[in-house]
Amino acid sequence: MKVAQKHCRTIWPDARCKFVQIIDQTKLPFAFEIVRVQSLEQMVHAISTMQVRGAPLIGVAAAYGMALAMLEDESDAYLAQVAELLIASRPTAVNLAWAVGRMVAALQAMPHTRRNFTAWRLAANIAEEDVAQNQAIGQHGFELIKSMYQNQLIKDRPFNILTHCNAGWLATVDFGTALAPIYAAHDAGIKVHVWVGETRPRNQGAFLTAWELAQHGVPHTVITDNAGGHLMQQGLVDMVIVGADRVTANGDVCNKIGTYLKALAAFDNIVSNQRIPFYAAVPSPTIDWALTSGKDIKIEERNGDEVSSIQGLDKGGKLQTVRVIPLESSAANPAFDVTPARLVSGIITEKGVFAPQNLHECK
Amino acid sequence: MKVAQKHCRTIWPDARCKFVQIIDQTKLPFAFEIVRVQSLEQMVHAISTMQVRGAPLIGVAAAYGMALAMLEDESDAYLAQVAELLIASRPTAVNLAWAVGRMVAALQAMPHTRRNFTAWRLAANIAEEDVAQNQAIGQHGFELIKSMYQNQLIKDRPFNILTHCNAGWLATVDFGTALAPIYAAHDAGIKVHVWVGETRPRNQGAFLTAWELAQHGVPHTVITDNAGGHLMQQGLVDMVIVGADRVTANGDVCNKIGTYLKALAAFDNIVSNQRIPFYAAVPSPTIDWALTSGKDIKIEERNGDEVSSIQGLDKGGKLQTVRVIPLESSAANPAFDVTPARLVSGIITEKGVFAPQNLHECK
Repeated sequence: MKVAQKHCRTIWPDARCKFVQIIDQTKLPFAFEIVRVQSLEQMVHAISTMQVRGAPLIGVAAAYGMALAMLEDESDAYLAQVAELLIASRPTAVNLAWAVGRMVAALQAMPHTRRNFTAWRLAANIAEEDVAQNQAIGQHGFELIKSMYQNQLIKDRPFNILTHCNAGWLATVDFGTALAPIYAAHDAGIKVHVWVGETRPRNQGAFLTAWELAQHGVPHTVITDNAGGHLMQQGLVDMVIVGADRVTANGDVCNKIGTYLKALAAFDNIVSNQRIPFYAAVPSPTIDWALTSGKDIKIEERNGDEVSSIQGLDKGGKLQTVRVIPLESSAANPAFDVTPARLVSGIITEKGVFAPQNLHECK
Repeated sequence: MKVAQKHCRTIWPDARCKFVQIIDQTKLPFAFEIVRVQSLEQMVHAISTMQVRGAPLIGVAAAYGMALAMLEDESDAYLAQVAELLIASRPTAVNLAWAVGRMVAALQAMPHTRRNFTAWRLAANIAEEDVAQNQAIGQHGFELIKSMYQNQLIKDRPFNILTHCNAGWLATVDFGTALAPIYAAHDAGIKVHVWVGETRPRNQGAFLTAWELAQHGVPHTVITDNAGGHLMQQGLVDMVIVGADRVTANGDVCNKIGTYLKALAAFDNIVSNQRIPFYAAVPSPTIDWALTSGKDIKIEERNGDEVSSIQGLDKGGKLQTVRVIPLESSAANPAFDVTPARLVSGIITEKGVFAPQNLHECK
């Protein structure tokens, strides 16, 4: 999507396949810095320090990490070593292991001398697949928005979409998942306005979603995570779209902590004669067919420091971390929650939009 | 309640009625500072800069402000001038206007020479009435907790209460409203544990509620506002108690933004074979009998700067304000929301506990 009027992706190789460039996401939203990644070691660093983050993007970054490694050494032994190193750089990221596995399988089948060339081509393919998938999600979601926009009871007002966390292009190579339909609608001339929940504790909404919407020129307003319910009561939310870390076979949606509260509020309020629609937008591989219900998901408990401290820009323009709870108190930090399928209007995938009870059609 | 093992109130006069002492709440939770307020001017400053805050406490502070003024000048003209000045120090605070009105009425009926003496006595009475009211709220709420604690399906585990914002002793002279039952239960030996929602944007939960619970020795854990629903799904919340800025005749509860989301989640989840009970604790004058429904309440929209910036302690131990949304984005900041009576188990008042449909019995 656009940054300062120019089209940009989160990751791209140089034309001669010698290095990769990434947006350093740890500097956002207060600085836009492009980093040149020239070695496997630098890519492992970029992944582990979250210069690149978001499940789809991590997968692509790892694929390019293997390509960089093949510049150094095309041997079997090194291939195995590199795979291990990359997978360990963010141990819980499923896409990372998947992308690395795919690269290893393809490269092992090749003679050593062709591995370098193949690795760069395959990494580029994985990146393009991500883009195509997200574009398809965007198109299916756009059709939903368009039909709701046309059926609005009150005409000539913005179509208000609430989102949570960051499931935008910054989490992918381009377009994003939850934000892809919003970009598609905006680019097609629909007057959308996005309520961006700040998404404590890590503030990915305020830091990343707001930044990418601002860069692309999509009208938006940041709100506290507390404010979503009230806005729905006031008729100021026409639709909720979020991403998901995992969707189970029954349509339960596991996503960033706080998603469940927004889903409850959407279900409790009426807009244009229906409950406020609540959608999760995901690539179909995010659906975990092995799990029959979200109750089976073990929720990651992250470090309480993420709650007790917050990073922001001080008056001198420097990033500062400040403590926001008493020194005598401690914090708990469950990172995700599960929104039961009964509160979910549908799952938007690259294959189409599916109500939870029909999700099996997406298999 | 206790601060560092010693009993403390938020405001108290010196024994010779020459000055008043307050806790400077703008310094909490990172510093505990007592400020000596020696003149009307200083009290106006303390109220307007929120060194004292919380509706009941502001009322008492204003009453002591009048007492300080009577040390200076007991004339009719000055009395009127002082009243105007105090009321303007926090224009929207209903308790402030009420306390000032009560002081003025009593003092006007006195000969000038007795006004100084009367003012100090009356201010002390208003303070004691607040304390007695909160103790009664605490006692009624304690009975609720005790009976739920005894009926818990799983014995020998802490009784988990979730609260939002600060309706503790810091908002009153002592004991608080929502926290009064918790202190009573803790002091009576019930093993309570409090989930403290940080309460963005102003973080009164993380800053004030956590601090006062820590000082009194009540086990507690700070969470993001996003986490409450998930904890309820996990069976980790036995009861929700919040304060309220206003309760309408039908039992709708207007309280800090985000309260409605917690009430929805409580209603959606089961603990010990019932929906998680959701209570608001308020002095009965907080019930606005003139309003039949919360829909009639106009919600204050506060400055977006409260969302876009946050204050905390930097690594050098200094308070810093940092920006937490992009420079290109703006924020909306509705300050309160309305929890419909259908989600409210009861209103805890100094007169007893009333289900919303029986609230008229409290009149």
